Amino acid sequence: MKLNCIVLGGGGFIGTNLCRRLLAEGHRVRAFGRRRSFPAALDGIEWIEGDFADPHALAGAIETCEVVFHLANSVTPFSANLDMADDVQRNVAGTLSMLDVCRKLGVSRVIFVSSGGTIYGAPTQIPTPETAPTEPITAYGVSRLAVEKYLALTHHLHGLDYRALRVSNPYGPFQTAAKNQGVVAALISAAFADEPLEIWGDGSVVRDFIFIEDVIDALIAATTHEGDARLFNIGSGQGRSLREVISSIEELSGKKIPLRLKAARPIDVPVSILAIDRARDFLGWQPKTSFRDGLRQTIAWWQESGEI
Amino acid sequence: MKLNCIVLGGGGFIGTNLCRRLLAEGHRVRAFGRRRSFPAALDGIEWIEGDFADPHALAGAIETCEVVFHLANSVTPFSANLDMADDVQRNVAGTLSMLDVCRKLGVSRVIFVSSGGTIYGAPTQIPTPETAPTEPITAYGVSRLAVEKYLALTHHLHGLDYRALRVSNPYGPFQTAAKNQGVVAALISAAFADEPLEIWGDGSVVRDFIFIEDVIDALIAATTHEGDARLFNIGSGQGRSLREVISSIEELSGKKIPLRLKAARPIDVPVSILAIDRARDFLGWQPKTSFRDGLRQTIAWWQESGEI
Repeated sequence: MKLNCIVLGGGGFIGTNLCRRLLAEGHRVRAFGRRRSFPAALDGIEWIEGDFADPHALAGAIETCEVVFHLANSVTPFSANLDMADDVQRNVAGTLSMLDVCRKLGVSRVIFVSSGGTIYGAPTQIPTPETAPTEPITAYGVSRLAVEKYLALTHHLHGLDYRALRVSNPYGPFQTAAKNQGVVAALISAAFADEPLEIWGDGSVVRDFIFIEDVIDALIAATTHEGDARLFNIGSGQGRSLREVISSIEELSGKKIPLRLKAARPIDVPVSILAIDRARDFLGWQPKTSFRDGLRQTIAWWQESGEI
Repeated sequence: MKLNCIVLGGGGFIGTNLCRRLLAEGHRVRAFGRRRSFPAALDGIEWIEGDFADPHALAGAIETCEVVFHLANSVTPFSANLDMADDVQRNVAGTLSMLDVCRKLGVSRVIFVSSGGTIYGAPTQIPTPETAPTEPITAYGVSRLAVEKYLALTHHLHGLDYRALRVSNPYGPFQTAAKNQGVVAALISAAFADEPLEIWGDGSVVRDFIFIEDVIDALIAATTHEGDARLFNIGSGQGRSLREVISSIEELSGKKIPLRLKAARPIDVPVSILAIDRARDFLGWQPKTSFRDGLRQTIAWWQESGEI
């Protein structure tokens, strides 16, 4: 079935990958956002430049679309704490306006990329299932959680369907070292530039890294999924310490990464690993790419793209 | 210990009762809000008129206070759904600005009145403990939940202490029949006015009604509570159907309440009863007033106050 869809935040890391896949699979795809990190990568995809917080721009962009991917986000896990009220207004109130637009235009489904790494806070259960308590220790996690709750509410009150994917730590092509997008990109960039990278803490924090193509598989599966579950963890289900990631990148790239250690931040949980049974059982999805394979593809992209 | 405190939303139902008790117990109390429902009832209490969404007005009001009671709220469980983005901006972003002000002024504790009746949504576990899933089916519940999460976050990041009380359905003196404050006031008013009252559904919905003086006891206990628990259900722990409430009021008032039945609303959960073990065990609080006694006092207040 061919979809008529729009990717809000289509110019970013996940958005660029998603748009390319949708186009490759023959769907009609439009991208909306403030800017494209890699304009050439979005060749052949209709691009609408606009601000997520502007409902008029959104309405024009969403018109005629059936599926809305909501990846728009004006903050990072770190920057959200600097102005929480701004995060609430732009991202939470902004999502509510967007949902109004979707209802009025008859959109059939909204697919939201939520945050598997921050929404649970410091989890007591590892790997962490979707039913675990959600006690974020960063404003980023709270605003994602609020958006999830409003999605469920809008579905309950008005029937607008949705899926929310709590994605862990994605990495892969089109992730840039700038803007705190992810530590893998920052490490690869530092390796090739031979410039020291600041990391917070001693490298013992454990994260659940997932290759971007696996995330895109889950987003595509969410477009047609039927069933009562609407909220899914999307991760590898496995934890890796930052130290392990560093040595894997050093080994695969043949470079040494110069590090500068800084004090651990209160917003970083020590361990984050997602339980992915629900997505496996009900979304018919599972990660296919091993960490080493994913890293290899990512490093190859950095070398081919001329980013380094 | 005498407290130096301010009640945000001090002119409303809970606020008026709280201010009077604080004054009677010898605390220094200031009230802040858009309006006072019963100005005479707040005699002797410093009143500052202002909008919760105005951080400058708030800063002036909060200055020199150690304890901030946060009862400010521009919406009701019904009206919040009409403009969810407005609720988010005024109440959630507004709370974040307020917390900034509190941090800068060195406030020692914020006590927030949350919503025991809406925050859990349609509960699967009855009576419902604080650890139950929070899946609100009204925007009112989502915005209260977001405020709770930001309180926990601000405590985690900046050490500003708080307590959040998830109050069920309070009733008692100074609750008015207008503004959807509560069904008990609406029923008593209808009984004496002999005017038909619209109720949604067939009267089978079950709620956990708690007398206002018991709620005030809990709010006072929260000012000095030490311990790790910061979130407490405050209710009677018992359920009563709307039909039972109607017949109790009819019996105690000697009046017949004319009803007009309307279709049930999707925002009303069928049953809401709070488990109050945590407050009993850790806050050292328990409800003292039976439902009949509370109703009797409430009806007496309506008769004496000339409200009817």
